[in-house]
This record gives sequence, structure tokens and C-alpha cells, in this order.
Amino acid sequence: MKEKPLILITNDDGVNAKGLTCLTECLRDLGDLVVFAPDRPQSGMSSSLTSLTPIKYRLLKEEQGLKVYSCTGTPVDCVKLAMYDLLDRKPDLLVSGINHGSNMAICVHYSGTMGAAIEGCILGVPAMGVSLTTHSSTADFSECCRIGRRLARRLLREGLPAGTYLNLNVPNIPQVKGVKVCRQADGRFVNEYMRSENALGEPVFWLTGSFEEGKPVRPDDDMLALNSGYASLVPCKIDVTDYEYMERLRSMCDE
Amino acid sequence: MKEKPLILITNDDGVNAKGLTCLTECLRDLGDLVVFAPDRPQSGMSSSLTSLTPIKYRLLKEEQGLKVYSCTGTPVDCVKLAMYDLLDRKPDLLVSGINHGSNMAICVHYSGTMGAAIEGCILGVPAMGVSLTTHSSTADFSECCRIGRRLARRLLREGLPAGTYLNLNVPNIPQVKGVKVCRQADGRFVNEYMRSENALGEPVFWLTGSFEEGKPVRPDDDMLALNSGYASLVPCKIDVTDYEYMERLRSMCDE
Repeated sequence: MKEKPLILITNDDGVNAKGLTCLTECLRDLGDLVVFAPDRPQSGMSSSLTSLTPIKYRLLKEEQGLKVYSCTGTPVDCVKLAMYDLLDRKPDLLVSGINHGSNMAICVHYSGTMGAAIEGCILGVPAMGVSLTTHSSTADFSECCRIGRRLARRLLREGLPAGTYLNLNVPNIPQVKGVKVCRQADGRFVNEYMRSENALGEPVFWLTGSFEEGKPVRPDDDMLALNSGYASLVPCKIDVTDYEYMERLRSMCDE
Repeated sequence: MKEKPLILITNDDGVNAKGLTCLTECLRDLGDLVVFAPDRPQSGMSSSLTSLTPIKYRLLKEEQGLKVYSCTGTPVDCVKLAMYDLLDRKPDLLVSGINHGSNMAICVHYSGTMGAAIEGCILGVPAMGVSLTTHSSTADFSECCRIGRRLARRLLREGLPAGTYLNLNVPNIPQVKGVKVCRQADGRFVNEYMRSENALGEPVFWLTGSFEEGKPVRPDDDMLALNSGYASLVPCKIDVTDYEYMERLRSMCDE
């Protein structure tokens, strides 16, 4: 009998987040699931690693076809440690999420959800990050689950090219119009801090801000798709080399 | 009289690291320098953000043409907060480093040094990360400074395309042969953990491991240049979209 696919699930909102639980439920019949997620929220942790302290993990729950572990590390630590110490074979798929909040556009750089997907890709596992565009802890993940599950099935069947991972964002609306394959929108965050003070009267700064899209907006920008009621799916590369600029830079260095 | 260039300097080894001090000294005559760096080591922090707690900063030192600040945040927080609250104009250049340790190949994803460079680029500042291939806290940074300074001058003169930043790595040898413009080498870390136990007898895991280069090695891989006695300079892009795979993915989603 053929082995069931092994699916590794993680996130950056922590092992108790609703998005993780919904994702796990909706992928349940696609294979043997191992959830290995941070023991606390790790939003905005990007691809960070825990190197100055040791990390550990423990089993929280075991059912037929499902094991759930919590880990003291970052999302990337979770992927590395699960594959190093726990799993006896390489997962057939890694799904990270469902994140509470969008990871469109440049957020791919800050997101712990996407950090975990990047790590899966580096370690040779077809990997996808899934995010819903609301930070609500009680959001309705059903549309997002439906779309994520469909893509997960395709990934189990077809895989991904080496060095490519997927960034799926789903708008927080009752009926999503479909999935659009997109490019990463340009832009930056503005008004990024709220100035406050601590009990000593010293100025302190809380991260906040809003995203300002780069101009011009391109027809296949992920942000545009989301704003138009579509889920956006961006294929992303581990190799960030700017090949177009290499030649110009060479001549600059030779001068 | 023309204003002197404004250069923002940060790192991920913390404001007291030798690499930062050497970099600051060697760029001293190129403009007005503002050092705004983490108050403690932040290696492997990637592009992580501090969102659950507030951050603050303070002036450590002020001399003619040089101000040094320490900040409680990550390298990316440092860049964001310096530009949001401290600087009254956009820097002409951001240099992050000199990192104690290589950031070649896929390390661009984990590195706090490179996280800061990415952030500078997102915020529209020509940005470069500089790393020396040794973790020694007392390393000799003179060759690295010589090469970094030369590039910094060029960047002040010529800038960089929007969305492109530079990753400079310098081998830890007495005489570097030159600078090679490279691509990001392929590969992954292996044997990533040392298993140990804590005082309660529980298993804990320390991050370690060695880099295993992908095969085949390409002639313009950054790792090959470093191993051959050259500094490697990789131009990198904020936009990580895999454009080549978009079409195939579209047809997969339409099926």
C-alpha cells in the first residue's frame, strides 16, 4: 500500500491560533499531518533563527493521522527542527498558516509565515504560505481553507520547481471570485510608528503604519487582485540575485 | 555650499561590535555619519520586526560629523526608526555591517545585516550589506574596509536602481584578489543542531550546522569567488516574484 503523503504544517501566530487549527482540519484527509508550530505568537519574525539560546519542543496532541507539537523557536526554527529531529522522512508538502493578516507585496520579507515557507523550500519541500487579510483572532477562514486545500492537493500531485515557493493571500470576504497568479506589488509602509512614553517618561515607539502601493500599479500586482475580490498567488524565488543588474555592476566595478 | 552626503550605518552584531566601529572609521570622511544600531547582538534576525513591544533609542556619542545611537530593536527596526524619527532627510547611502561572519548564498535570507540593507532599499536608500567571512570578534577588518569604502564611494556617486541592494562578502585573508560580481550560490545547511539537555534533563537543541553547496557549482557563484580569494558582490532584488514560473502556475490554476 502506498504511503500517505506527509504534510508539515506550521505558522507564525503560534500553535493555538485559529488559522492554524482551521488549516489543519481542512487538510486532514489529504495525508498524515504533523503540526510543529511556535508556542507563542511570532508575527513579523521573517526568516529569523534562534542561535544564542537552545530550543526545545513537545507533543501536545496525538490522534489518528495527526500529531501536534509546540516549539520554543521561530517559524524557521520549527521547520528546521521538525525535519532534523522529528520526521523520519521528508515531508511531501509544507503549508504555513493560515496567517491572521495579509502577507502580500513586500510583506513577504517581514512575515514569519513566509519565513517558514522559504525554509521549507530551501530544504527541498514544496512549500506554500497562506494568509487571510484580517488580523481578527476569530475570523472566518472557510473561503481561505477551501482555496488553500485545493492548491495543497495540486502541490501534492505536481510539486514545485526547486527554489520556488508560493505566497497565497485570500481576501476576507464571504465569496472570493477566484485565484489570480500575481507578481509581488511594489510599495512601502508609511507613518510607521506611534510615539508614546514609558513609565519613566522616556519616548517609546510602537510599530504601526499603513501600506502605500508603488506607482504605477501593474495589472498583475497581488494587492490589486486582493482589492478586486480575488485571492492572489505569487510564485517566489529563493534566489534573489538581480541578474539584469549584474552586467552594469560588473562594468562599474571594473572602472 | 553643497551638503555633505548623509550615511546611515547599522549592523546586526550590535553597536559595540568591532566590525561596526571599523566600518564607521573607514567611511568617516565620505559624509555625515549616523550610526543607529541594535543595543545587543541580533545575528540571524533576518527582516524581523518588533511589533508586540515598543522600542526606544538613545544617543551614545556625538563628534563632528558622527552621531552614534543604540536602539532596543532589530536591525530593520533600526533603519525604520532612524528614518522615521531621527533623520531630517533621506540618507544618501545605507551601509550595514561589517558583519562578523559570511552572509553569502542563502544566508541573505537569515541575516540581520542583510535585513537592514533590504529595509534601506525598500525605503528608497541605496543600500549595501558588508560581511567578513569570520565570526572572530577581534578579526582584522582592514581589507574589508578598503573594499567596502571603495564601493560606498561609487554608490554615493551612482546610486542603485530602485528595488536593488548589494550583498558584499569579503574573505578573511590578508590580501583579497579583487571584487567579483556574483550570483547567490545555491545550497542549504546540514547537520543543523547539536542535541544537548537542560538542567531538568529535557532535550534541547542548539543551532549549528555547515553549508552544503548546491550542485553543480556555477562559475559566478558567490561562494566560489570567496573560496578563490575574491570578495563577492551580489546585486539582489526586493521583488522575489518567480516570473518564469508564473505562466505554468496560471495554467495549473486554470485546469
